[in-house]
Amino acid sequence: MQRVLGIILFLLVTSHSFSQNKIVVFQSDFGLKDGAVSAMKGVASGVSPDLKLYDLTHEIPAYNIWEAAYRLQQTVPYWPAGTVFVSVVDPGVGTTRKSVVLKTNTGQFIVTPDNGTLTLIAESLGIAEVREIDEAVNRRKDSRKSYTFHGRDVYAYTGARLAAGSITYEQVGPVLPKEVVKIPYQQATLGSGKLKGNISILDVQYGNIWTNINGDLVSQLHPQYGDILHVSIFHSGKKVYEGDAPYSQTFGAVAKGKPLSYLNSLLQLSFALNQGSFANTYHIGSGSEWSVDVTLKPKK
Amino acid sequence: MQRVLGIILFLLVTSHSFSQNKIVVFQSDFGLKDGAVSAMKGVASGVSPDLKLYDLTHEIPAYNIWEAAYRLQQTVPYWPAGTVFVSVVDPGVGTTRKSVVLKTNTGQFIVTPDNGTLTLIAESLGIAEVREIDEAVNRRKDSRKSYTFHGRDVYAYTGARLAAGSITYEQVGPVLPKEVVKIPYQQATLGSGKLKGNISILDVQYGNIWTNINGDLVSQLHPQYGDILHVSIFHSGKKVYEGDAPYSQTFGAVAKGKPLSYLNSLLQLSFALNQGSFANTYHIGSGSEWSVDVTLKPKK
Amino acid sequence: MQRVLGIILFLLVTSHSFSQNKIVVFQSDFGLKDGAVSAMKGVASGVSPDLKLYDLTHEIPAYNIWEAAYRLQQTVPYWPAGTVFVSVVDPGVGTTRKSVVLKTNTGQFIVTPDNGTLTLIAESLGIAEVREIDEAVNRRKDSRKSYTFHGRDVYAYTGARLAAGSITYEQVGPVLPKEVVKIPYQQATLGSGKLKGNISILDVQYGNIWTNINGDLVSQLHPQYGDILHVSIFHSGKKVYEGDAPYSQTFGAVAKGKPLSYLNSLLQLSFALNQGSFANTYHIGSGSEWSVDVTLKPKK
Repeated sequence: MQRVLGIILFLLVTSHSFSQNKIVVFQSDFGLKDGAVSAMKGVASGVSPDLKLYDLTHEIPAYNIWEAAYRLQQTVPYWPAGTVFVSVVDPGVGTTRKSVVLKTNTGQFIVTPDNGTLTLIAESLGIAEVREIDEAVNRRKDSRKSYTFHGRDVYAYTGARLAAGSITYEQVGPVLPKEVVKIPYQQATLGSGKLKGNISILDVQYGNIWTNINGDLVSQLHPQYGDILHVSIFHSGKKVYEGDAPYSQTFGAVAKGKPLSYLNSLLQLSFALNQGSFANTYHIGSGSEWSVDVTLKPKK
Repeated sequence: MQRVLGIILFLLVTSHSFSQNKIVVFQSDFGLKDGAVSAMKGVASGVSPDLKLYDLTHEIPAYNIWEAAYRLQQTVPYWPAGTVFVSVVDPGVGTTRKSVVLKTNTGQFIVTPDNGTLTLIAESLGIAEVREIDEAVNRRKDSRKSYTFHGRDVYAYTGARLAAGSITYEQVGPVLPKEVVKIPYQQATLGSGKLKGNISILDVQYGNIWTNINGDLVSQLHPQYGDILHVSIFHSGKKVYEGDAPYSQTFGAVAKGKPLSYLNSLLQLSFALNQGSFANTYHIGSGSEWSVDVTLKPKK
Repeated sequence: MQRVLGIILFLLVTSHSFSQNKIVVFQSDFGLKDGAVSAMKGVASGVSPDLKLYDLTHEIPAYNIWEAAYRLQQTVPYWPAGTVFVSVVDPGVGTTRKSVVLKTNTGQFIVTPDNGTLTLIAESLGIAEVREIDEAVNRRKDSRKSYTFHGRDVYAYTGARLAAGSITYEQVGPVLPKEVVKIPYQQATLGSGKLKGNISILDVQYGNIWTNINGDLVSQLHPQYGDILHVSIFHSGKKVYEGDAPYSQTFGAVAKGKPLSYLNSLLQLSFALNQGSFANTYHIGSGSEWSVDVTLKPKK
């Protein structure tokens, strides 16, 4: 009887008490037309069929590390501590970039090549610890024969083992200094009446320009709706656009086809054309090499 | 011993007996390229990592409430009672549209702005109850500071809490009258030998026209294959197409490029061009403002 | 007391011991814009809300059985034994093609119309057993009234019941001979110094040509980097391309726009244009009706 009870308690404890959240969230530039994403999830399910496997997006433009970094920053904070992200945008596969697992200060894990993908999340959530994946142990069996698909054989496999509790964070591999490879970009700043910032991303569907300059910084310029912001946009330091964009509460505040500036849904300074595409019309892109200067035009 | 048994039974009961189905199904017009859908799932997983989170579609055309309504009607009946749908097509965010949870007569829940999204499901499955979301309690913590993304902070959060059993349906908020905002559209009718109906949706891949006139109604006209149906199509009441479409069992029954009428896979009256796109050729759309008149042409 | 223990053990055993992996992976040519995939998952969740439902892809080109076969071959091996695949690319719905469940020698199950979809997986993983679905019992209730959507009412339903343990593999239906409908295609061979093979798939994003000729076979020609491979491409037996493609380690080994041959990430012989699309430039497709001949050009 005692033994039976012991077995019962053991089963209950193992199945109820020590469970991690068992969630893995995948991001890549693979698209969803072929079997690559499914192969990663298959390997993860082979580690433990109890895992819950979700997607951030697989529509990152090919090799676009900046956008991978941006989507992580936009999303990771909304997932609970213990969630494991596997992000595979890896133009340098086969080179010497390190394979790492970063733990944020808020308790999420990100498994990724350390190639700039961690640039923004390291700044916004902070680094609790970084460990290098020891591929001697953290690699899918039978994957050494020939070609290794790192996303599947190392990243998905390690992320799944971490999420399932098959390995501890320490068992990922040796601890690294608390730093990651960073893509340089224009931080949001205000000095001498001039706002500087980066074009983080385009609101693709509409062609609007989203910067990293948040509303608090904008408010230090004290713009009123209807005031004119003078905007310069630079690509790799070269000016490619200059113009006036009235600070507006609604797109209809300017004539059709005219530029305006506004705070977007993330309360960041943005530029648009009323019923038009600012990005297409002026050939503006986004990413680390795009920056803006903004000043408040004196009233006449 | 008694105590140990008690604990064991309690654990078993809590883990087995009272469980809801813990399924949340998301629909939106967000697309899958950015992090919006993933942020909603993150918030839901934060409520309970045991939830199973699925998608209806996120490719609803931007702001197209009608299509959101149609996809729910097409899909909800196939999910078990207790499933919670979160549908976020919300052009009126920030206006006074109510945020509600409808319980169907078949036991599924739909969390959505009450903006017409519930038009079709309310008719086909029936309304068991409607409750308004009390945002004072049913809103993600820390989401009041600045900008609220309702899909994430209210709808995904409330849907997840309902699916996880963290709140009962009653705790969603106050009960409302058993009615929802409805988009007016042409019901399927037969009178004086004339079928009237709505163009519910296009079979986009092929450009076929799908109406809401079902096979039972069609059969009351007693058409034989080869008989001619005379079809008029109206946009906002204005006639935009008129022509003959032989009632056919196969597309090949008419010459290449010629129109035909047939019952589609849902047994609803539809129109097509053999090896062509009816919708593109005649600039036909779908939605509440599109309707058709159909009569059986007398045989010569 | 004995009885209580008995109940506890029964609950534990049913919930822990005999559990299958409860994973179903869906593939189709439905796309993700409408509700078809969600309806299949709804039916599966109705069988058991504990299932974990994933996707291989739903972007198989319409009716393209070959590509369905290829994606299964590419993906199934990475999922654990017991995983149930439901693949619905079914141009012959309504005809006499059989509905089957194949069990691979590695223990995965594939639920599909037997229309060629199993061509490649049967060769690569081998057939442990094939059973025909007995639709008299393995069909969703209420689905006989009118129109049957096989993907939902038979395949998803049967796959879910198998994955959930509601039925055993034997209860799927009668055992069939260990053979499946096969799409004929050019096997990879080497004879008299000539490699023959099939164009399995295009690397769509870049327009590269992937064959089924693996690196081991290529190495029997003993090509050195820089050696010239002479390539002929045939569509349904008719030659549509002939040219030289230097065997290269990197794309940059040839001038911009020039053809090269190389081993792709699956270590299979492939052809590309440096910074161009081989497929678009020369109108090359993939599938069973596409084949290649390759010889090593003698050095001058």
